[in-house]
Amino acid sequence: MTLAFSPVVVVAPDSFKASLSAQQVAAAIGAGVLTAAPHAQVHLCPIADGGEGTLDALLHAGGQRRLLQLHGAAGAWREAAAGLLNDGSAVIESAEIVGLTDHAGTAVAVQNRSTRGVGEALLHLLDSGARRFLIGLGGSSTNDGGLGMLGALGMKLYDAAGRQLDALPSQLDRLARIDISDLEPRLRDIQIVAMSDVDNPLCGPQGATAVFGPQKGVRPEQIAPLDAQLGRFASLLEQVCARSAANAPGAGAAGGLGYALLMLGAQFQSGAHTVADYVGLDAALKQADWLITGEGRSDAQTLHGKAPFIAAQRARQAGVPASLLSGGIDRAALGVLQNSFAGCFSIVFGPVSLEHAIHNAADLLHDSAEQMTRLWLMGANRNRQ
Amino acid sequence: MTLAFSPVVVVAPDSFKASLSAQQVAAAIGAGVLTAAPHAQVHLCPIADGGEGTLDALLHAGGQRRLLQLHGAAGAWREAAAGLLNDGSAVIESAEIVGLTDHAGTAVAVQNRSTRGVGEALLHLLDSGARRFLIGLGGSSTNDGGLGMLGALGMKLYDAAGRQLDALPSQLDRLARIDISDLEPRLRDIQIVAMSDVDNPLCGPQGATAVFGPQKGVRPEQIAPLDAQLGRFASLLEQVCARSAANAPGAGAAGGLGYALLMLGAQFQSGAHTVADYVGLDAALKQADWLITGEGRSDAQTLHGKAPFIAAQRARQAGVPASLLSGGIDRAALGVLQNSFAGCFSIVFGPVSLEHAIHNAADLLHDSAEQMTRLWLMGANRNRQ
Repeated sequence: MTLAFSPVVVVAPDSFKASLSAQQVAAAIGAGVLTAAPHAQVHLCPIADGGEGTLDALLHAGGQRRLLQLHGAAGAWREAAAGLLNDGSAVIESAEIVGLTDHAGTAVAVQNRSTRGVGEALLHLLDSGARRFLIGLGGSSTNDGGLGMLGALGMKLYDAAGRQLDALPSQLDRLARIDISDLEPRLRDIQIVAMSDVDNPLCGPQGATAVFGPQKGVRPEQIAPLDAQLGRFASLLEQVCARSAANAPGAGAAGGLGYALLMLGAQFQSGAHTVADYVGLDAALKQADWLITGEGRSDAQTLHGKAPFIAAQRARQAGVPASLLSGGIDRAALGVLQNSFAGCFSIVFGPVSLEHAIHNAADLLHDSAEQMTRLWLMGANRNRQ
Repeated sequence: MTLAFSPVVVVAPDSFKASLSAQQVAAAIGAGVLTAAPHAQVHLCPIADGGEGTLDALLHAGGQRRLLQLHGAAGAWREAAAGLLNDGSAVIESAEIVGLTDHAGTAVAVQNRSTRGVGEALLHLLDSGARRFLIGLGGSSTNDGGLGMLGALGMKLYDAAGRQLDALPSQLDRLARIDISDLEPRLRDIQIVAMSDVDNPLCGPQGATAVFGPQKGVRPEQIAPLDAQLGRFASLLEQVCARSAANAPGAGAAGGLGYALLMLGAQFQSGAHTVADYVGLDAALKQADWLITGEGRSDAQTLHGKAPFIAAQRARQAGVPASLLSGGIDRAALGVLQNSFAGCFSIVFGPVSLEHAIHNAADLLHDSAEQMTRLWLMGANRNRQ
């Protein structure tokens, strides 16, 4: 015999990329918990780490979605969302504007992809009155050192003959002079928080091109010339600005967009921590009995500032045990994951294809959360016999 | 903060077919439990349900393995194991002698497969002094109505011209007379326990051929003639024996081997319950905190007398919660499985192939049992803060 009790369960997952938003994941897990524990109090706190899904997670905490007409990474007009939060901060998610999952954006070579749309979003939101900007840097397809964004904000590039150049990496071998006299004046009065967990500098073996370029389509033989061109752009820009940022941690984030934001005075901040603060995770964890978090795939990288790890850290500070429920878990990482998670589980119920897991993710999340809850309750009822 | 405690965990899985024996499964789960809960007392009770693995599970409880030279289902000599338990009972596992997984045995058409080897095993074990026989009926490839076994024990079949026939279904259309005068005389003094959860009669729409024939290779058009031939054999046999069994529950087990055993006076008994009794599951469950059971694949059939279900029943009687850890779980059956199991989990950690799961089953079992234990302990420690 067991006694009923009313556990408080906080459900704070990241999105499952290419499958479900963090809200959808949280809703499915929460429903599964309630199926097993109808008397539970379930708090849904979808989270993100600065990459894809960050805007949604922040808006879930309270704010307005704005649809903007912007240029995507390949230069074509597209509609992209940004946000104005209840505290007046504006949210720009790089992944939403120049995301790696946007096939139109990645249809052109990486040297011709631009963060121009990010700059345009900034201008739109400045027009809306925003003076504080949260900019998520994860998941971009660009490697332009923020050239495109700065171009949209008024920076001009010229060749030796005084001809203006497009703000694209492919033009940088002709770059002779940079002019920032037309830079948007309102930028002086704003606060920028760059949400990123990347510490890399702009250039060099740990730089944006060498480390993150390959996953964006930079071929091995292109790394050195692209890296050198971004370096040359930075040294010219730093001469005219009389400040430097190329070697600062985070300059290499989002293909060097981090560098350009640093040049605009941005502060870097963990995306996962920022989102956790906005969604009120700590408040939800007060008096909670259990945190369930998760993501599409968990591995040793999860412990490097990803959202589920930050959620588990917050839970530990609150004295709340945390479990992990992800689409898939790298079994080799269990040894380190279990320092943060009491139980790491996959959503699947047997050998299935990735397609099956993605297609049925909501049902699988519901059912696996239900099974986890049954086991957990069984343990919790052990001392109540 | 949590206090250490010493939970008692009973690990009583069935084998994972085509992958690991029940002992191997139990050992892997037990090791995983101990990794998460080093102070736990773990009792390994590998179980079985009368099919493949029954001999191993019973021998694990105490006894001697005997290797016998016997005829396999296709008539070729082969070595097969039987057992003599510490209480003097002999164990014959049909699946070990004429198993569906024995490719040599299934190389011939089902009408030419024979249970002769089962009769030979009986004779060998009679010679060893055994007078009580536990015969597991699950997992056979034969559909001979026990003809072969009875032939090995002395029954003779003749055609209308008085020529002796081989004891094979393919000979039954010529069968005119059965002679049991040479039947092994020691059979009168023995006790046979047929371990089976099958209630089917020998013939008819619920009979051995119609229900179990197709999975053994009986083609749809062969069902009616084969069924009629077994029926004719049974009516002739029942005339000479002056007893009947064709309509008794279990006559249709193991392709009608159940029928022949009933004609020899066998008692039917749940295989899973018999094994659970031998391995001392109830004693292990006394003072236990948790039972973990499992099998290769769980679905709604699991609740029809399969070993994990019986283990869960025994646990419930002892007031011990049970969880299921299987290679795969039919998600559609979760609604009924959860009446018996507090938490149903698969061994896999994400989308993988069946081959991967089979090949890595031991490691997957270890790791998933460890994760389940971490979650369970977390719940159990909830009231100990």
